[in-house]
Amino acid sequence: MRIGLDMMGGDFAPIEAVKGVKLFLDTVATDAHLVLIGDEAALAPLLSDAQLDQSKYSVVHSSQVIGMNEHPTKALKEKPQSSIGIGFHLLQNGKVDAFISAGNTGAMMVGTFYSIKAIEGIQRPTISTPVPREDGSFGLLLDVGINADCKAENLVQFAVLGSLYSKHILQNSNPTVGLLNIGEEEGKGNLLAQATYPLLKEHPQLNFIGNVEGRDIFTNKADVIVCEGFTGNVVLKMAESIHDIAVRRNINDDYMHKFDFETYGGTPVLGVSQPVIIGHGISKGIAFKNMLTLAQQMIESKLLDKIRESFVK
Amino acid sequence: MRIGLDMMGGDFAPIEAVKGVKLFLDTVATDAHLVLIGDEAALAPLLSDAQLDQSKYSVVHSSQVIGMNEHPTKALKEKPQSSIGIGFHLLQNGKVDAFISAGNTGAMMVGTFYSIKAIEGIQRPTISTPVPREDGSFGLLLDVGINADCKAENLVQFAVLGSLYSKHILQNSNPTVGLLNIGEEEGKGNLLAQATYPLLKEHPQLNFIGNVEGRDIFTNKADVIVCEGFTGNVVLKMAESIHDIAVRRNINDDYMHKFDFETYGGTPVLGVSQPVIIGHGISKGIAFKNMLTLAQQMIESKLLDKIRESFVK
Repeated sequence: MRIGLDMMGGDFAPIEAVKGVKLFLDTVATDAHLVLIGDEAALAPLLSDAQLDQSKYSVVHSSQVIGMNEHPTKALKEKPQSSIGIGFHLLQNGKVDAFISAGNTGAMMVGTFYSIKAIEGIQRPTISTPVPREDGSFGLLLDVGINADCKAENLVQFAVLGSLYSKHILQNSNPTVGLLNIGEEEGKGNLLAQATYPLLKEHPQLNFIGNVEGRDIFTNKADVIVCEGFTGNVVLKMAESIHDIAVRRNINDDYMHKFDFETYGGTPVLGVSQPVIIGHGISKGIAFKNMLTLAQQMIESKLLDKIRESFVK
Repeated sequence: MRIGLDMMGGDFAPIEAVKGVKLFLDTVATDAHLVLIGDEAALAPLLSDAQLDQSKYSVVHSSQVIGMNEHPTKALKEKPQSSIGIGFHLLQNGKVDAFISAGNTGAMMVGTFYSIKAIEGIQRPTISTPVPREDGSFGLLLDVGINADCKAENLVQFAVLGSLYSKHILQNSNPTVGLLNIGEEEGKGNLLAQATYPLLKEHPQLNFIGNVEGRDIFTNKADVIVCEGFTGNVVLKMAESIHDIAVRRNINDDYMHKFDFETYGGTPVLGVSQPVIIGHGISKGIAFKNMLTLAQQMIESKLLDKIRESFVK
């Protein structure tokens, strides 16, 4: 398996990207070959210093960089030799089996939707966040921001995608699904939630347990929680801010530290035909390592094949 | 001024209601006369034990109680002698200037909308929550649950109502208004947020500062944050759960304790023609005291007159 990594993406690239590669190769059992995409001159001394096993990676030179604030579509068009442009080119042509970047998020989204396609039957690919729980396990919340307006059918597809991810990546054998709502009983909520509930209830592939409320997000009530991307994004960013508050106030609690979502290393775009992982701009070594690990897990578990099978008509 | 209080509402009534009355009369400077609505036989010994100044209150007997899980409309219709039924009757007939209950929330909402009217020009009355901030001040988030589906015009009205409340009750002299959204720039967000932004920007009565994100809710970025009631309710209940987590994990932090929203003592229904305050079912003495204080503040500050003036065409 070959994993493509954008070495120039993120606020602390390429140094932290190199650190992540080293962490990954030093600590994770892998037969992956890493394809490191970036400026050769910038990378050479860092890679040399890191004393990596040279058989485990190769460098693909990119002569351009897309800045964090550039217009996504314009930048991708005008900078085909950027690390993101090259990454999607390699993915499209089967030269890598997954592509990871902590660079310009918009460019990553545009690249994903234009270079590789949604899996047949999926209306709206989605992004998610792991939700830390007190017992050490992880739930999954989706969508967390790319689908701000949704129809009920979209939420049902998120539930299927999330269940497969929860099962094959987060190791929940029969993941429960909850609908994020503002009341417990069926019939509660806004028009979208009211329309979604019966569809989730009837769906043969889902282990639907009903509505979950804001207070249930960090509990084990549901392994997969679905909502439109507006509410999901507000929830995610609010949870991140709780971590900031805990750090600022010297609250030293193991669980509160798990609200440091950046360490999780980015989100896969679920529902597209190849593994793409989008990292936070502020990703550090541990985040890059975790994204590499996730890419490997997605490939090894054949998650995308499972998704394809689920959406066959 | 006369404040009506349902002594039978809430999980710990009437004991905690009596405690709240005592706390209020003992610690808050007031010339209010309290009208305590409840079962006389149940109240008499408790009130006697509390050794209250008898000139400060009178008891109005109610022979029925609406349970926490009864159907609101049905219960109100079939139990006119319930404490909630009598409370709204007194409010409607000018016998009290405000009505407070920690009883059946649905019955309180139905009672509010059927007994007293929305202020002319207001399409959707709303409920809010104070938002604790690290500097000790309070922001305001609204709507937090009674308007799950909203139009842009509703959010604009929430912003006006919230600004007046923030100014006259929370003492923010020129409250800033933020639109809860999933990006900073104008044009971001779901269709509702996109439609609301320009209306807030152009509104002559509002000090609009733009979008705020989930991470900004607990900061001073905006004194008043508006959203539809679906997202607002999820945010509120999630914040409450953070407090539960902090308690469970023995996190002893002054600020985290402020996420104990129950102590704030309930929410006024903003936009209706008389002060109505709805408490949490699990209200204890401090919550009842805070609701009485809030009712007094709403009357003294003539908040409802200010609201009427703002909505004159």
